[in-house]
Amino acid sequence: MRGAAIYAGHSAIQLSLGFLEEGFEAAIFGPPERLKLYERFPTLKARLHQYSDPSLLDSLADEGYFLIPTGGVVEYLTPSLVERVRIPVFGLRHLVRWEADWSLKTRLLEEARMPMPRRFRSISEVDRLVIAKLPGAKGGRGYLVTRSPEEIKNWLKNLREQNLITREDDIFLQEYIVGTTIYAHYFQSPIMDRLELTGFDIRYESNVDGLRRLSPRNIGDLKEGFVVTGNLQVYPRERLLEEFIELGEKLVEATRRLIPPGVIGPFCLETVVTEDLKPIVFEFSGRIVAGTNVYLGGSPYLALYWGREMTVGRRMALEVRMAMEQGRLGEVLT
Amino acid sequence: MRGAAIYAGHSAIQLSLGFLEEGFEAAIFGPPERLKLYERFPTLKARLHQYSDPSLLDSLADEGYFLIPTGGVVEYLTPSLVERVRIPVFGLRHLVRWEADWSLKTRLLEEARMPMPRRFRSISEVDRLVIAKLPGAKGGRGYLVTRSPEEIKNWLKNLREQNLITREDDIFLQEYIVGTTIYAHYFQSPIMDRLELTGFDIRYESNVDGLRRLSPRNIGDLKEGFVVTGNLQVYPRERLLEEFIELGEKLVEATRRLIPPGVIGPFCLETVVTEDLKPIVFEFSGRIVAGTNVYLGGSPYLALYWGREMTVGRRMALEVRMAMEQGRLGEVLT
Amino acid sequence: MRGAAIYAGHSAIQLSLGFLEEGFEAAIFGPPERLKLYERFPTLKARLHQYSDPSLLDSLADEGYFLIPTGGVVEYLTPSLVERVRIPVFGLRHLVRWEADWSLKTRLLEEARMPMPRRFRSISEVDRLVIAKLPGAKGGRGYLVTRSPEEIKNWLKNLREQNLITREDDIFLQEYIVGTTIYAHYFQSPIMDRLELTGFDIRYESNVDGLRRLSPRNIGDLKEGFVVTGNLQVYPRERLLEEFIELGEKLVEATRRLIPPGVIGPFCLETVVTEDLKPIVFEFSGRIVAGTNVYLGGSPYLALYWGREMTVGRRMALEVRMAMEQGRLGEVLT
Repeated sequence: MRGAAIYAGHSAIQLSLGFLEEGFEAAIFGPPERLKLYERFPTLKARLHQYSDPSLLDSLADEGYFLIPTGGVVEYLTPSLVERVRIPVFGLRHLVRWEADWSLKTRLLEEARMPMPRRFRSISEVDRLVIAKLPGAKGGRGYLVTRSPEEIKNWLKNLREQNLITREDDIFLQEYIVGTTIYAHYFQSPIMDRLELTGFDIRYESNVDGLRRLSPRNIGDLKEGFVVTGNLQVYPRERLLEEFIELGEKLVEATRRLIPPGVIGPFCLETVVTEDLKPIVFEFSGRIVAGTNVYLGGSPYLALYWGREMTVGRRMALEVRMAMEQGRLGEVLT
Repeated sequence: MRGAAIYAGHSAIQLSLGFLEEGFEAAIFGPPERLKLYERFPTLKARLHQYSDPSLLDSLADEGYFLIPTGGVVEYLTPSLVERVRIPVFGLRHLVRWEADWSLKTRLLEEARMPMPRRFRSISEVDRLVIAKLPGAKGGRGYLVTRSPEEIKNWLKNLREQNLITREDDIFLQEYIVGTTIYAHYFQSPIMDRLELTGFDIRYESNVDGLRRLSPRNIGDLKEGFVVTGNLQVYPRERLLEEFIELGEKLVEATRRLIPPGVIGPFCLETVVTEDLKPIVFEFSGRIVAGTNVYLGGSPYLALYWGREMTVGRRMALEVRMAMEQGRLGEVLT
Repeated sequence: MRGAAIYAGHSAIQLSLGFLEEGFEAAIFGPPERLKLYERFPTLKARLHQYSDPSLLDSLADEGYFLIPTGGVVEYLTPSLVERVRIPVFGLRHLVRWEADWSLKTRLLEEARMPMPRRFRSISEVDRLVIAKLPGAKGGRGYLVTRSPEEIKNWLKNLREQNLITREDDIFLQEYIVGTTIYAHYFQSPIMDRLELTGFDIRYESNVDGLRRLSPRNIGDLKEGFVVTGNLQVYPRERLLEEFIELGEKLVEATRRLIPPGVIGPFCLETVVTEDLKPIVFEFSGRIVAGTNVYLGGSPYLALYWGREMTVGRRMALEVRMAMEQGRLGEVLT
């Protein structure tokens, strides 16, 4: 393979640099306004392609490129396109569909026996603090945190009047666990036949992380919003690491049973750690996440496996290079 | 030039080490109690000078030193002194006056067409959450966050009674934008003819970041204070980077028009990122800021330009060295 | 000496790697479920020992190992065992008793003339915001933050009914200082005869750091909990560094007077920095703390002394190696 085709999105810098450093080429594609950033950095010698239709991916395939699935790819190209394009995909191609669908994702997490927040099937069941989520999340704004079924009903009424939703059942009602959010990053390596822990982040969200800097008298009726604006490094207690690794392993096993041959490469478990020191898994991402950018300078967790710090982007490139050298590309690209 | 004269203040460690590493000398000056710290570290081989009057700067000029403007220099030596001392100054010397004066600074930000919080010219206009700021900020304590014009009036009455202010018009009334604070660091390089993004921080402030760890019942009538006690690293979403770079470029252009030849070296835009993912600029610093200390071990953003991590202090030293080698010192020192 | 005996706890990764990198062996011991983690990382080539009784420590002593005191060692083996085991201990062995006892610890901090929160001897004295702490802290859950003596009495009544405490006087009542928490890490080196500042962290606690992401209407009657789930890097203002160093020096001097020859190696001062920029010391740990894990990739503060980043674990190993080379082991192991 010649190189990686990377959507001009949340982790394109570390992906491009990582593949370039491992001797591949990097082709970044996307709408013109998103491409500008990638001309800014002299060390980032990637080809830039304006994306207008999927034929670009066919041309890149013909040139020997493979596609890196990211949040941007899935959102911009749609999951169904990612599933059917001709270009080889790094990782488990069909996982994108599972990740995009609340029912499939919940089935996967349940199969993995993840400790999860309770899910409420109807508004009237709500008997504690919950977070109501709109489908697609509307960029992080489609959330309501409350204890009140009435408030959820009024919120939905408003959303229907604004045509933001059509059916009440589209919303996802999840128990809101109070604790510290910790997003755990993993890399499942077919070549090394092991799961690597690549790091952890905390999301820095607008305006929930702005609210916390106001005294209650100034908050008034401002509500929690969860639009991700950035990420922070966090170093969990060492006694939590084994627990995080075991959660990751259970997720890997579940994908092997439900979507063989199972997850390949990076994924993320989004957790809240309670006062009992138990990580509760409220979300799952089957691909590289933006939170890995907190290791733009290299993750010290990856150094525990490789003796040197590297980004998750570099780790992915290393996997492809090892797969090529060992004639095992089919285990990494699907 | 022989070396850098550095005030014993907020970024003297990275500045001294950076200039030493690039082959210059470092002379740290300040009151005796502030100098002690710089004898603590064996790798920091700087000369230390007690500062009693500006003649020290003349002697240092005679020895071939240039002055690094920092927050401490401006505060301790006064902006007007920085403008008229004989010693060469790294960067745009006259920017210190613009930064020290709310009217000039606002004019600059407006010239740059920065997205800014609304400014209120009188207390009676206040119709939303605002932050009232005293001139000079009184070390971060001279702030009030409120929705109530009455509360501002009472606060001012108290301040007048304590002789902390003389005229009501001295206060600066700015809309308080709720969102995540992100402080973006830049380096405008005359030698490379480009703007480099050097990193981002979040301020860790007392007691606003203490309040957030109290439940509302315990906060009582405690008010938000904004005394900076430290800084944290933050990694903004990749899609925000282009927006931050463009804001920086607009600022550079505005300084070129209003204060030719325009800003040189490090500066900072202090922003709040809203739920619409728009950075709103509420402040500007035309010099190295303390927040760059989060990269005491080197900024991974600077590695995108230079292939290796470095501090902003080191980046400044590199600019002077390149300027000397190319006979272009006049573009860096003014 | 052959190597370090390390409890399978909060900083075993950096300790094992640090000693291995300095040419020692590493033996990790603990209950079987805690050992699993240390087989996960290929770079961590430590021997693993199931711990069933103290005879293991005698065998390790016979093989030339010394013991690293950590929070886990003290909690799991008890302070009195650490004081009397035959195996040499890195650092000041008898400090573990002082750290485990509120009265001794308070005596030490008072001897050091640390700026401290006011301590209340009885509930009826409480006239401001306080934090009530149970002995042993019950994993971080045994805390109450309140202004109300009545609330403390009811809380104690409940605890007595649950047999969690026996006597009211067991609780520790401390003024709750509002400000930014900063945990300062130190290394007192007998070999270099100096105190090194090794870094700073902030604790990430459940659920106090979860509460802050809820609007007041959603917090309801949720109370602050202080179970540590992780740590974050923080870079204090440079003007605070000298103050932190001087606090550390005063602590070193006090231990020299009360527990000769005084503290050896890593320790931590847990502080709150107020709006007056004064660090108030509310706790002390006489050993390596979990917060040093934020420098899993190496502390840039240690680079100020050694010219390269390293972990506190590596710093400890370096001290033992230098002590051996100079025939001064008795100054480091006790």
